[in-house]
Amino acid sequence: MTVVWHCQAVNSSRTAGAVRQGSLRELNLAVVLRRIAAADPPPSRARIAADTGLTRATVSAVVDDLITGRLVTEADPAPRTGAGRPARVLLLARDGPAGLGLEINVDYLAAYVVDLAGDVRHHEVHRADLRPVSPADALARLVELAGRARAAAVREGLTLAGATLAVPGLVDARGLVRLAPNLGWREVDVPALLAAHPAVTEPVPGIPPLVVENEANLAALGELHARPDGPRSFLHVSGEVGIGAGIVLDGALFRGARGWSGEIGHIPVEPRGRPCRCGGRGCLETYAGQEAVLAAAGLAGADLPADTAARRLADLADAGDPPTLAALHAAGTALGVAVAGVVNLLDLDTVVLGGGYAPLARWLRPPVAAELTGRVLTAAWSPVTVRAAALGAASAAVGGAGSVVRRIITRPSGWLSRPT
Amino acid sequence: MTVVWHCQAVNSSRTAGAVRQGSLRELNLAVVLRRIAAADPPPSRARIAADTGLTRATVSAVVDDLITGRLVTEADPAPRTGAGRPARVLLLARDGPAGLGLEINVDYLAAYVVDLAGDVRHHEVHRADLRPVSPADALARLVELAGRARAAAVREGLTLAGATLAVPGLVDARGLVRLAPNLGWREVDVPALLAAHPAVTEPVPGIPPLVVENEANLAALGELHARPDGPRSFLHVSGEVGIGAGIVLDGALFRGARGWSGEIGHIPVEPRGRPCRCGGRGCLETYAGQEAVLAAAGLAGADLPADTAARRLADLADAGDPPTLAALHAAGTALGVAVAGVVNLLDLDTVVLGGGYAPLARWLRPPVAAELTGRVLTAAWSPVTVRAAALGAASAAVGGAGSVVRRIITRPSGWLSRPT
Repeated sequence: MTVVWHCQAVNSSRTAGAVRQGSLRELNLAVVLRRIAAADPPPSRARIAADTGLTRATVSAVVDDLITGRLVTEADPAPRTGAGRPARVLLLARDGPAGLGLEINVDYLAAYVVDLAGDVRHHEVHRADLRPVSPADALARLVELAGRARAAAVREGLTLAGATLAVPGLVDARGLVRLAPNLGWREVDVPALLAAHPAVTEPVPGIPPLVVENEANLAALGELHARPDGPRSFLHVSGEVGIGAGIVLDGALFRGARGWSGEIGHIPVEPRGRPCRCGGRGCLETYAGQEAVLAAAGLAGADLPADTAARRLADLADAGDPPTLAALHAAGTALGVAVAGVVNLLDLDTVVLGGGYAPLARWLRPPVAAELTGRVLTAAWSPVTVRAAALGAASAAVGGAGSVVRRIITRPSGWLSRPT
Repeated sequence: MTVVWHCQAVNSSRTAGAVRQGSLRELNLAVVLRRIAAADPPPSRARIAADTGLTRATVSAVVDDLITGRLVTEADPAPRTGAGRPARVLLLARDGPAGLGLEINVDYLAAYVVDLAGDVRHHEVHRADLRPVSPADALARLVELAGRARAAAVREGLTLAGATLAVPGLVDARGLVRLAPNLGWREVDVPALLAAHPAVTEPVPGIPPLVVENEANLAALGELHARPDGPRSFLHVSGEVGIGAGIVLDGALFRGARGWSGEIGHIPVEPRGRPCRCGGRGCLETYAGQEAVLAAAGLAGADLPADTAARRLADLADAGDPPTLAALHAAGTALGVAVAGVVNLLDLDTVVLGGGYAPLARWLRPPVAAELTGRVLTAAWSPVTVRAAALGAASAAVGGAGSVVRRIITRPSGWLSRPT
């Protein structure tokens, strides 16, 4: 699977601050690397000079640094007819730094390695019910996957420059998982528990060795990267046992003040309705979460892994099973009510159904769209698009690995100055 | 009333792009002017050099340009004891550019002039029921207020550098009012209607002569500026006949893709509840809008101006009138349900009750807070603050005038290069 990094053009109007000469090299490294990452077809040195306004000598010096640092490679272009020797082109290196995306969820562990160009170079998914497992034991198993991912990266000539761990819960700025209700975690100090294990990433200035982040946020980033030509602002809703949302605005994740945004599962859709495990009443999760949908479809207590449950529901719906169709219609209606409120509030025009909702999008989309048409104030001028996610279950781990790679592309000087 | 501009410190880590020498003067003008705007107490030239890392010669050249251009004045500091002659300090000019904030609402027109330092130097509010008046006639009346505001500005030695018009509706990027349901406006081309009237602002490069913007968005900006030491992210809810919200994130207005964000009045709070004039059902507006509250308090059909209605309700609540207290409790509960969803989605920790809600905050706050406590997932770690707005009805016009002034402080080179 190829994930292409969509990098914003450098916007000189945002430049603010008295820039000193010392940071110019750093700036030019980033400008040239981002240009190489964003260009299609791959650019030559001359093309970069023309596009950036930098002199050809400056571009060549910067490109040489990037090649020496294993961030860029130079290649012959595809042959073309006509006179003249074609210029060599610049590509992101396939043997430089890579990001490691880890995920711990209710019923699986995952590890993905993504290279600078956005390609997944290794992945492993380990299925297990993690609810009865202690956080320390679950993390110990994850470390085994991470170790194998590191070995695979080394075999591919890659260096793991940083890791991101996706968790289905509220994570604070230093990686403490405050609450992951569906895993049964509360106040779990992930960095402290992982400190007992050997590191799998190399130290790189400016790149944290491990970032712990909410899974729905990372899934939205995965979607952004999987569709570089897609919309730059959207709501990504992941439906599993819990329902989380990632809000992407103008190509960047909106995390909220503490990174706790996106708890769409606890938007009230029936204020005096069903009690929710959060302590509230009538939360979306109690109407459109996986347990509610399975119960309404006559599969209560089946206790299936999230993706198995979604496939089972899709099979039943495909066969025209009336209770399943009714359950999906009711879930889609509740989801549409909540999403209509979000769209009225945030003025978004794209809603992506991800996670366990992706394989069910065919049945969820019509009731969601009906609620949006009836409730969104601006629907008459600008209809809201509802579609399935591109990546499915891998999106959080791929989005997490990708966020490591994006840090390097945004500020390559850290990687270039690392101790080797 | 003093409105102090809170300007962010220049963040050099955001500097991105190959900066050329030509833009350095522009950059330094902005850095120094923002430093003067943000500093308390007023800084000397030496203090600015120390804080910005610019040389004293550069600071002095830049300051001289700002003084010549009527953006800054130099003054003797407050006398102090001790040896040595105190350095002169720099202040924003009180006879330079100013912003004009206009507002057209259901029952009033308003014009406010705000100077560079954030002080309101002139204001006029004209009360009239504008629902039976055609858009062209309503705008013609507004132009009369604008003309008097200009004359007042000239008398004060100020130059109107731009104007902002607040409208209670959906406004597109070129100033077309798509829909202002409570005014009865639909597809009203405000710039075309105003073209028949003489301009009241001077042409300034980089400053549009007139920006038309949603009233709730501008009211949130007014709140931001009225409390420079307040939170940098909050939800501002304006309760009138309609209910609008302005979302401020890290000190900037979140407008959404088309500027249509903040339609909190159409978040569903009872999905199968009361029909709303938007075509939906159970929208917040039908439970917590002014008409619903007046009806529940036994004042249906009173057809009062928004601020009169809010004062009448406050008087009745103050006197302990049971139907009014029950009406405000029900409205606060509905508002709390909608706001709890917003907080779960956006991870905000402050909610400001503005517009017609401000004088009623004493009674609305308890039920709003109760819903937030029971429904916000993160309430245990980080309680949500609910409070009344600082500015009340003036906030949209002051916020609009302030946005003109802020453009000048952010990019003074446009003002300095204007044709004179």
